[in-house]
Amino acid sequence: MTTDKLGIIVNGATGRMGYRQHLVRSLLALRDEGGIPLSDGTRRPIELYLVARNEERLRELAAKHGIDKYTTDLDVALADDDFPVYFDALITRLRVPVIRKAIAAGKAIYTEKPTAESYADALALAEEAEAAAVKNGVVHDKLYLPGLLKLRRLIESGFFGEILSVRGEFGYWVFEGDWQPSQRPSWNYRAEDGGGIVVDMFPHWNYVIENLFGEISSVYAETRTHIPERVDEAGKRYTATADDAAYAIFDLVDGPIVQFNSSWTVRVNRDELVEIHVDGTHGSAVVGLFGAKVQPRNVTPKPTWNPDLRDEHDYAADWIEVPQNDAVDNGFKLQWIEFLRYVLDDGTHDYDFRSGAKGMLLAEAALESNAAGRRVSLAEQGGAK
Amino acid sequence: MTTDKLGIIVNGATGRMGYRQHLVRSLLALRDEGGIPLSDGTRRPIELYLVARNEERLRELAAKHGIDKYTTDLDVALADDDFPVYFDALITRLRVPVIRKAIAAGKAIYTEKPTAESYADALALAEEAEAAAVKNGVVHDKLYLPGLLKLRRLIESGFFGEILSVRGEFGYWVFEGDWQPSQRPSWNYRAEDGGGIVVDMFPHWNYVIENLFGEISSVYAETRTHIPERVDEAGKRYTATADDAAYAIFDLVDGPIVQFNSSWTVRVNRDELVEIHVDGTHGSAVVGLFGAKVQPRNVTPKPTWNPDLRDEHDYAADWIEVPQNDAVDNGFKLQWIEFLRYVLDDGTHDYDFRSGAKGMLLAEAALESNAAGRRVSLAEQGGAK
Amino acid sequence: MTTDKLGIIVNGATGRMGYRQHLVRSLLALRDEGGIPLSDGTRRPIELYLVARNEERLRELAAKHGIDKYTTDLDVALADDDFPVYFDALITRLRVPVIRKAIAAGKAIYTEKPTAESYADALALAEEAEAAAVKNGVVHDKLYLPGLLKLRRLIESGFFGEILSVRGEFGYWVFEGDWQPSQRPSWNYRAEDGGGIVVDMFPHWNYVIENLFGEISSVYAETRTHIPERVDEAGKRYTATADDAAYAIFDLVDGPIVQFNSSWTVRVNRDELVEIHVDGTHGSAVVGLFGAKVQPRNVTPKPTWNPDLRDEHDYAADWIEVPQNDAVDNGFKLQWIEFLRYVLDDGTHDYDFRSGAKGMLLAEAALESNAAGRRVSLAEQGGAK
Amino acid sequence: MTTDKLGIIVNGATGRMGYRQHLVRSLLALRDEGGIPLSDGTRRPIELYLVARNEERLRELAAKHGIDKYTTDLDVALADDDFPVYFDALITRLRVPVIRKAIAAGKAIYTEKPTAESYADALALAEEAEAAAVKNGVVHDKLYLPGLLKLRRLIESGFFGEILSVRGEFGYWVFEGDWQPSQRPSWNYRAEDGGGIVVDMFPHWNYVIENLFGEISSVYAETRTHIPERVDEAGKRYTATADDAAYAIFDLVDGPIVQFNSSWTVRVNRDELVEIHVDGTHGSAVVGLFGAKVQPRNVTPKPTWNPDLRDEHDYAADWIEVPQNDAVDNGFKLQWIEFLRYVLDDGTHDYDFRSGAKGMLLAEAALESNAAGRRVSLAEQGGAK
Repeated sequence: MTTDKLGIIVNGATGRMGYRQHLVRSLLALRDEGGIPLSDGTRRPIELYLVARNEERLRELAAKHGIDKYTTDLDVALADDDFPVYFDALITRLRVPVIRKAIAAGKAIYTEKPTAESYADALALAEEAEAAAVKNGVVHDKLYLPGLLKLRRLIESGFFGEILSVRGEFGYWVFEGDWQPSQRPSWNYRAEDGGGIVVDMFPHWNYVIENLFGEISSVYAETRTHIPERVDEAGKRYTATADDAAYAIFDLVDGPIVQFNSSWTVRVNRDELVEIHVDGTHGSAVVGLFGAKVQPRNVTPKPTWNPDLRDEHDYAADWIEVPQNDAVDNGFKLQWIEFLRYVLDDGTHDYDFRSGAKGMLLAEAALESNAAGRRVSLAEQGGAK
Repeated sequence: MTTDKLGIIVNGATGRMGYRQHLVRSLLALRDEGGIPLSDGTRRPIELYLVARNEERLRELAAKHGIDKYTTDLDVALADDDFPVYFDALITRLRVPVIRKAIAAGKAIYTEKPTAESYADALALAEEAEAAAVKNGVVHDKLYLPGLLKLRRLIESGFFGEILSVRGEFGYWVFEGDWQPSQRPSWNYRAEDGGGIVVDMFPHWNYVIENLFGEISSVYAETRTHIPERVDEAGKRYTATADDAAYAIFDLVDGPIVQFNSSWTVRVNRDELVEIHVDGTHGSAVVGLFGAKVQPRNVTPKPTWNPDLRDEHDYAADWIEVPQNDAVDNGFKLQWIEFLRYVLDDGTHDYDFRSGAKGMLLAEAALESNAAGRRVSLAEQGGAK
Repeated sequence: MTTDKLGIIVNGATGRMGYRQHLVRSLLALRDEGGIPLSDGTRRPIELYLVARNEERLRELAAKHGIDKYTTDLDVALADDDFPVYFDALITRLRVPVIRKAIAAGKAIYTEKPTAESYADALALAEEAEAAAVKNGVVHDKLYLPGLLKLRRLIESGFFGEILSVRGEFGYWVFEGDWQPSQRPSWNYRAEDGGGIVVDMFPHWNYVIENLFGEISSVYAETRTHIPERVDEAGKRYTATADDAAYAIFDLVDGPIVQFNSSWTVRVNRDELVEIHVDGTHGSAVVGLFGAKVQPRNVTPKPTWNPDLRDEHDYAADWIEVPQNDAVDNGFKLQWIEFLRYVLDDGTHDYDFRSGAKGMLLAEAALESNAAGRRVSLAEQGGAK
Repeated sequence: MTTDKLGIIVNGATGRMGYRQHLVRSLLALRDEGGIPLSDGTRRPIELYLVARNEERLRELAAKHGIDKYTTDLDVALADDDFPVYFDALITRLRVPVIRKAIAAGKAIYTEKPTAESYADALALAEEAEAAAVKNGVVHDKLYLPGLLKLRRLIESGFFGEILSVRGEFGYWVFEGDWQPSQRPSWNYRAEDGGGIVVDMFPHWNYVIENLFGEISSVYAETRTHIPERVDEAGKRYTATADDAAYAIFDLVDGPIVQFNSSWTVRVNRDELVEIHVDGTHGSAVVGLFGAKVQPRNVTPKPTWNPDLRDEHDYAADWIEVPQNDAVDNGFKLQWIEFLRYVLDDGTHDYDFRSGAKGMLLAEAALESNAAGRRVSLAEQGGAK
């Protein structure tokens, strides 16, 4: 690695997430600010190398953003030693073989999640990267959003005392496609196409829970396909074969109980689409991706359960908003900086391939729990594969 | 049965619930209004016969409220044929033998819940009452509260389309007793004294669910004792041995999934201490014991899950309050009227001893589920006893 | 002392405070509830013996409240061994000789404050009571008011982290008596009659500070007579010779700095007539005699000092009210219960004659500081007398 | 002095304050409006001459704002007789020798404050300017903010009657730098680097008080370093050696007593970061930098001090907002106009070098008071230097 520009290969830069979040808002923003901000106050410039299938689209993007290097041949890019970092934003199905090539090329690898379509494959990939001693990381963007940063600060400041329990609610109403077009792609509702809310969201809940509250030991989940028939992008009825809601309880090795509902068939009675309610001995918080409000025990009211009398207390007034004291940068960009500084031996990055694989493990254990009607331990589930 | 005053024996009239809810707000109110309102528009007068242990207290109450008949000897009261109805508000432990006497005396029997300390005993009592062909009923007061009446009306009007799922949240913060005195008695937190939130609240959830949504087939529950040590009424520390929170999922024979949290260690982020969120294909509702708000599908917003952008939509504004179009009478009194009209063959009453017994069955199945780490079917649990 | 009724001599029962606060709201209320509530759950009945100068007024009061014993001759009352407790609500000037008699009679003594007109006299009285080994106590009523009880609970719960500083504001506008009659007696504004805001209020600030924050080591004060001429009850102009405002800073032996303004010439820009603002590392509170609001550090905003731009932040919204979770009894009565239980060896009582004397010491040190233009240590001030 | 463009040398135009407040918002704004508005309704155009060390930055600024003249050599600028006014926005340490040169060159001199690092140096500079008979002025920007202009108008209109007392509260919570980054530079907390809230803010309080209420005769102050350890810009712990709070009482030669708290460790329970409460015989005001509210004596309530009864009076409702009847220009620009008209013999300007020096004197006297534990007179403190 030289002391001048850090070269980064961006594979899949033409997709929606790859383009908007990773290229424009993260890497190009970093490039234009002068590079990666380092702990000594200096910046390390970066250079990008775009890879995608569609050459015309590639040329257009490169021109628009002033990028010199691009190719449709990944092997060419991987062979270029001026680009020691590889980023992958391909669709999941294509990911494993391509990342294997990057491992073989000795690149530091950062990738969208999930890293593979099964826990077994994801774990194997993590082990290969570790064996090859290449630095590796997986996108865990939600941890970098303002609401969860506030929650982390509340936890670290000791606000909660001992954390007793966590309730999570995620979801909104996804239209069925008949009387109003659906706002999600139809493959999300077909198991045979990799759909289902468990596979989609449990990897997120895994890293959110593990990084904020502790390691998950077991899961109980019930899944449902509440809307059995939907209408697709072409206006055709199809049978929904994947789960569109999951009701789960996570037990932690050493931490609070976490009860979490995920649903595409719920009407929102919350401030945000995700809401996490944390109760501790010294205080509670209700946190979304952006906002957070708290109730310290000193302002906790003392209701009496007297069901035949109407309770006039205004419970909403017992909570107070946590201010946004810092300007918060884009979550994707923040994790990019952290990963790149780790590549430059200027800091650490916690979310590696193994961490990404655990998200798949949790999703698989949840589905197994639903089938078996019992709590499933992750150790057992991981071992059984 | 004569056509003049309907005689009702009230046993345990001196206790808090027996006196305030049943005697003053229900039976004396009915007596003073001229009696039970019947379907033909007339009223049937009632006469009360108080039974309790403390003769002085009895005499005082009888005098204060203008009641002629009272006794400390239950057998005397049961032998009086002018009083064909027996009501029981004793503590649970004393209930079974006394109700057996009332069955033997051929009385129509109405009783506070639970009817017995175990499902087995409660079931046996129900079978004895059925064998003796005496009319029998159990207090199910919450079903008669305004919020649940609104919910029933929403269901019956077809508002929800198909009901897909139900979420319930019950609870509030019960102070630990050290820095602020507790607002619940300490025995609630000692398993050896019959404490625990499952035993306390699941019988309520049972009749609420069964009467609004359908018969429960199985339950998964995890219970916790979040606060392991509390301070009692005398300022002494004690070990909490009973559950103070329960996280449960109820499956129904033919109905929505019901996810329900119950906790004495949660800070309230709701309008009321109980909140039931119902989602159906055509609309949703959020209901408390008093209030209710709805969102028909026609006003359902269409959020997009785009976690890196702050969502400015005001979700609270998508709900609209259900008005209280009727003056609603006290819930206890409403059920009294229904039961007494049933006694007079002027209507039906759904909540008999068997229904009461099922509440105990649900609590027992939930505790078994927590111990076994799996979903427990009520059929299995009932049969095992 | 017998095991039946505890006898209490009430001297000065006909004055405004003696009658309303001590007799009616405290002692008669206790008597009518069945007596002093003890730690074992029982109550000890009390009996009262009224002493005052005006026999007719005495007879009237005794009759009205069903009190058998009263006299105009204090010596007779003190000689009655059935009345082991003496309470004094006389005017300050008469107090010392009368309390000496009660000491000689071996009574347990409770008294209004100040115990004497100077620190030297108050200290001597405390030493005499200690030498005679009689239990003794002084009214410190404000500590028992809801706002200060909330503050104590905040302190004891560790809400503040380390307490850094305390600001106090007391006062309101007392009318001059010319264009509107004054709401305070004219002697308050004449030093020769024992007037002055320092003498009136600093004994209160002393026990409030010492019992909540720590022992006072020194004081700096500046006093003013802002309104030099007033009009008295008879409509006559008089020269105000006593201080009507005091600006003070208290240093504590081991505790926060306390800055405290007291004024009868301030227009109120607060929620209550007394307001105490406490800042700690982990949170702040603003407390009155009844209300309290807090701001934990987790909701503390991050203003930037940018004086040429208008700051639109709503600072009032950063505070949240501390609820009144307990019904709070009258402050005078609460301290009566504490003192009487101490007399019965069923608890402790912290506010003895020595504690009362320290309030006078603080007032004298403050006046000395104003004269000398420097901080005055209480040790020095106490020794110099 | 010619009748055409008035030439102004701007030294230090590239710094934050120099550029934004003085160049862009004041001088360039004036230039673009046609020049200095004079008493006869005409305008006198101005021309600027920029001086700074960084030639590239100078050239860039000059080009951007259409300024012809700039140099890195101050002597060249001072030698130019077309520019009779010199403005200094350098850092304090460099100021004295440079201003001496401007005095020697016979310029009219306007400067940021403080004029020197000690009162002695500041006084010497003032005496030199007076001896040389050059017009001189110091930035006193806060006096020109809307809130203080309203206060001045209240005073001049006789609203207060006699002003009796003034209370000031300044401050907010500056984060410690560990769990949230600090919003002030770390040198503010190191005495060895010129830090401390007394040195930072007391020069401001000096000119505010002297220009609104009267000359300060003496000061008592206690300072504290409430947070002994902070974390700096690089994430390193350091020991705070400078005062972060000061509790002061100012006596005036002929005016009200002024009690003033300044703190970087206070949570804000006010409308603005600075709040000045003024009580007079005929009315009171609470004033910030922007807003002001008043209570004339005719609407003053008459509370009774009855601490055992909750006082339900809404004291906030007794105050009424003073409207902003004039559009108020930027405070810096307003003072520029005043100074430049004074240079042109078209008005007066009160805030000369001697006035600026007195701000330093007050800060030094306050620190001496804290050390000595007594009130320090400014005459004594000034003479001792």
